[in-house]
Amino acid sequence: MSLLDNIHSPADVRALPPEALEELCREIRGYLISAMSVHGGHLASNLGAVELTVALHRVYDTGRDRLVFDVGHQCYTHKLLTGRKDFTDFRDLGGMAGFPRPDESVHDAFVAGHASNSVSVALGMARARTALGEDYDVVAVIGDGALNGGMALEGLSDAGKSGEPLVVVLNDNGMSINESVGGLADMLGRMRTRVEYIRFKKWYRQTIMPHIPGLNRVLARGKKWLKDRIIPENIFDDLGYEYIGPINGHDLRKVENAIRWAKEYRAPVLVHVITKKGKGYPPAEQAPEAFHGVGAFDADSGMPHYTGEDFSSAFGRALTEIAGEDKTVVAITAAMKEGTGLIGFQEAYPDRFFDVGIAEEHACAMAAGMAAQGLKPVFAVYSTFLQRSYDMLIHDVALMGLHVVLAVDRAGIVGRDGVTHQGSFDVAYLSSVPGMKIYAPANFAELKTMLRKAVLEDTGPVAVRYPRGGEGLLLGDTSGKTAETVYFHGDDVTIVSYGTEINEAMAAARMLRGRGIDPEVVKLNVLSPLDTEPVLDSVRRTGALLVAEEACAAGCIGERLLAAAEQAGVALRASRLVNLGDGLLPHGEPWKLREKMGLDNGSLCSAVLEMLDGKDQA
Amino acid sequence: MSLLDNIHSPADVRALPPEALEELCREIRGYLISAMSVHGGHLASNLGAVELTVALHRVYDTGRDRLVFDVGHQCYTHKLLTGRKDFTDFRDLGGMAGFPRPDESVHDAFVAGHASNSVSVALGMARARTALGEDYDVVAVIGDGALNGGMALEGLSDAGKSGEPLVVVLNDNGMSINESVGGLADMLGRMRTRVEYIRFKKWYRQTIMPHIPGLNRVLARGKKWLKDRIIPENIFDDLGYEYIGPINGHDLRKVENAIRWAKEYRAPVLVHVITKKGKGYPPAEQAPEAFHGVGAFDADSGMPHYTGEDFSSAFGRALTEIAGEDKTVVAITAAMKEGTGLIGFQEAYPDRFFDVGIAEEHACAMAAGMAAQGLKPVFAVYSTFLQRSYDMLIHDVALMGLHVVLAVDRAGIVGRDGVTHQGSFDVAYLSSVPGMKIYAPANFAELKTMLRKAVLEDTGPVAVRYPRGGEGLLLGDTSGKTAETVYFHGDDVTIVSYGTEINEAMAAARMLRGRGIDPEVVKLNVLSPLDTEPVLDSVRRTGALLVAEEACAAGCIGERLLAAAEQAGVALRASRLVNLGDGLLPHGEPWKLREKMGLDNGSLCSAVLEMLDGKDQA
Repeated sequence: MSLLDNIHSPADVRALPPEALEELCREIRGYLISAMSVHGGHLASNLGAVELTVALHRVYDTGRDRLVFDVGHQCYTHKLLTGRKDFTDFRDLGGMAGFPRPDESVHDAFVAGHASNSVSVALGMARARTALGEDYDVVAVIGDGALNGGMALEGLSDAGKSGEPLVVVLNDNGMSINESVGGLADMLGRMRTRVEYIRFKKWYRQTIMPHIPGLNRVLARGKKWLKDRIIPENIFDDLGYEYIGPINGHDLRKVENAIRWAKEYRAPVLVHVITKKGKGYPPAEQAPEAFHGVGAFDADSGMPHYTGEDFSSAFGRALTEIAGEDKTVVAITAAMKEGTGLIGFQEAYPDRFFDVGIAEEHACAMAAGMAAQGLKPVFAVYSTFLQRSYDMLIHDVALMGLHVVLAVDRAGIVGRDGVTHQGSFDVAYLSSVPGMKIYAPANFAELKTMLRKAVLEDTGPVAVRYPRGGEGLLLGDTSGKTAETVYFHGDDVTIVSYGTEINEAMAAARMLRGRGIDPEVVKLNVLSPLDTEPVLDSVRRTGALLVAEEACAAGCIGERLLAAAEQAGVALRASRLVNLGDGLLPHGEPWKLREKMGLDNGSLCSAVLEMLDGKDQA
Repeated sequence: MSLLDNIHSPADVRALPPEALEELCREIRGYLISAMSVHGGHLASNLGAVELTVALHRVYDTGRDRLVFDVGHQCYTHKLLTGRKDFTDFRDLGGMAGFPRPDESVHDAFVAGHASNSVSVALGMARARTALGEDYDVVAVIGDGALNGGMALEGLSDAGKSGEPLVVVLNDNGMSINESVGGLADMLGRMRTRVEYIRFKKWYRQTIMPHIPGLNRVLARGKKWLKDRIIPENIFDDLGYEYIGPINGHDLRKVENAIRWAKEYRAPVLVHVITKKGKGYPPAEQAPEAFHGVGAFDADSGMPHYTGEDFSSAFGRALTEIAGEDKTVVAITAAMKEGTGLIGFQEAYPDRFFDVGIAEEHACAMAAGMAAQGLKPVFAVYSTFLQRSYDMLIHDVALMGLHVVLAVDRAGIVGRDGVTHQGSFDVAYLSSVPGMKIYAPANFAELKTMLRKAVLEDTGPVAVRYPRGGEGLLLGDTSGKTAETVYFHGDDVTIVSYGTEINEAMAAARMLRGRGIDPEVVKLNVLSPLDTEPVLDSVRRTGALLVAEEACAAGCIGERLLAAAEQAGVALRASRLVNLGDGLLPHGEPWKLREKMGLDNGSLCSAVLEMLDGKDQA
């Protein structure tokens, strides 16, 4: 019987003798590698955070203390230790989530998925704790990559001056770090742990200071004088933190001691822990980026199972080709060069490739500056992360009508990464950006044609939105028009869709023909500005409209089409909008989520039958 | 004849002998004080930046070099020196803008208005310059307040490591700075100007290094060894900048010399300039916050002309009252405590008031953390700046359905501050946030009632949006229902509106009665979730709909109502949506902008007559 078998809650971790912990960590690693090889997930970062997570659970009671993960994909050990060992349906609909989920366990303090929010959230919790006179502890765990995001620094700045008892653990694996933060890390590396200095400070703060009025000020001055002259400052000192580190993040006892110190210090403390991504699994140690987020793989060799061509790689190839024709084209990514398919571009044009780290705001404003001075910047970014740039899209790009191209990857249903990663909102928020043109390719050929138009022909803000994954049955390039009938010219019902969802719409249309219904399927290629005429032409004939789209309901294209129909005086006898609702889709296999939302071909067919039936009878 | 009379372009500034510059600065100050006393504007920050701006124009040719202002309200001297001395219609429709406007002058390199973007934009420009083989210079001017914004640090981090020749001037007036950044400034203050050190470095980089292979590395190591042990580092050093400062920003010769050095250094340089807000005008020096953005005032005494009660102060009073009843209520602002009316709250409840500086992202995520742990946070923020928090509203607040209250000030037409400040987009972007409830009060009484509901009764994300300025004729509190008929129950046309625009709708209705048209005016109180039934009830009777709203067209309420009408099978014989179009309104008096957009009562009346006529004939 293994140690892990006996761990049912964090209390069991705390009850273990220190000498058993190394074995526990070994067992956890084995469990993770085995589970990931079957189910996929974020392997490397989790292997790197095993000791750190065990240490956190030795020090904190996460049932009441609040442990806030940043991004959160490194939470697997945390899940194992908090009673969640069943990876059977991991990241499937209804199964365990790949990120912290407060609705999954009381031990998950807050939602995580988008980077750089943890310090802000933790500070809010600490302030609530103090304001309400409660006495739990709050700790944030942030990676070096997330530290690059501006919000992290906003949060660190405010938390440092707040004086709130609060611990920030910097989990520094040096992988996603960019060179400038690396320079900062270099400086931090020169700092010593200073445990004795901290012990002294704690003693005089708690024991001496309250009894001698004015001593605080005198000592503070003396300390400052001393520090100014002898101890090099670092940014965390400056921001008001007691800094401890750097600490070897795989030496469990050291990490545990440092965190215990930090907890007891009753002020903002930053614990700097150095970890190795992929630790303990040689294939992941050697190529941690390949094991950042993995599908199922062979556990012995570490080789991934087959994955086919997808929109991201098609985008990367197309953009590299375009860049060969136009020297003013440059590519920008915010720490997602693999995910957005830009590796090939970087190899071909290293001087025209810019990875700014996790900094979507900066990426967008920088792109605006580039466009203002004659470059053609293409910012490749996931739909969900582009939400960060909403203000910059309006203020920095759209006000001057600058030609910034957005390659909006992972638009629509994303799947297993869950609610924090679905691309539900881009149709709504991009439509509200002044002058923004939005293309919606349905296959690789269209992606290529539309990207060429966006980069080489359009002149203002322009987005090309495409989904995660591969193309469907519709492979022809229909992008010559803003919208086009792609299936029959039936008289009974108009089905409108765009992107790869068009394949479901067409399959539904085929089913309907089998049921004696004669549909017309209209495919939209440009979502904004929206050319409503092709749809109105169709509904004038059919009198019924179903719009199927992978976008949240508020601000969806279907609503826009209905409004246009009303204004055009077209009285529909039946209409139905099928979409992502409020946009909050859980994790799960994309096809299951599609079914859940009624966007699969069977559901669309049923919806048409129902609406025609229901309304005809009405 | 004054010196300023002879300044028609920056070339004239460069042609002046150094000894004439002090007099020029004095004349500029006199001109600004006199102009501001008549027209209003940002006085204190401009008085503080006179010498700095003159120095920039002595060094750079802004006709080709790119001078990027951050926020940009400190650009008045820049405008004076670039041929724009006519303040007659300052910030009026058609007159000179209060912020940099590239469409106003080639000397305005980029739009400014939202803080913290300048370094990102400048880096984009510098990279474009290098990529395209051009040779102009790029300089960003950023204040200490804007430095607190996360994007500024994202930009600084990327620019520092870029190696691009680029100058960042930190205009540090120590006013808007928060204590943590102040700690940073303290550290900077200990640094010496190091002009000779820089001179040496420049010499060895340009003259010695290219000739001795390997010397660079050896020298760099030596320097690092030396700096590690002797010279305290600062964050700008760490991020890759050559740091110069701090410099007295009112010693024009020193500032000019430092900027000239920085320009010639051909690498990222940060010039740290200390200025005094309000410099040279005693009333503004003594109370710079009062002179941040001023209306017209008496130039001798500095006393403002009368300004009446407005929604911001009504909000502040109401929230303070609510906080007296519920100890869990806290207020948050992002460096806008005066603007959002929170001064009184801060005085009454200093421990429950949090000014996070310019950091809207952090403010929102922190509020989420507070709400998760039992506080009721109210984030008071301008509509245009809340765009920054769009992602946090979805990811940190809405995913968990947290009870964060947004007090959305300056919603709709804002007026003289212009295109960067209009509250055009909040209806669209807030509507897309899952579960977000949106109230739209039309007067102070409703603001109070709705705020009470939002804070004390609602349980999820909730926003109360209200305009800049005062209330109109409709003073009754109609907030008991989600929507209500506030004028007649006419049979000819339904006019829908919300917020203070309802006053225009009602006045238009009165005019229509005089023309024999019998209208019904429906006032919306809750915009999301939208209760469409009251409007549908009305249009079923009238068959005609006009929706007047201070919101951009994409995602507007009118579109939603038309879609609902179509789905409900209501065939309108006429409809018209009157709104803010693409949302890009220029600067100007609010009433003129209202007219321009057809939202004044006269235009609304005409629109109804036209649409009824036109459609009846059709």
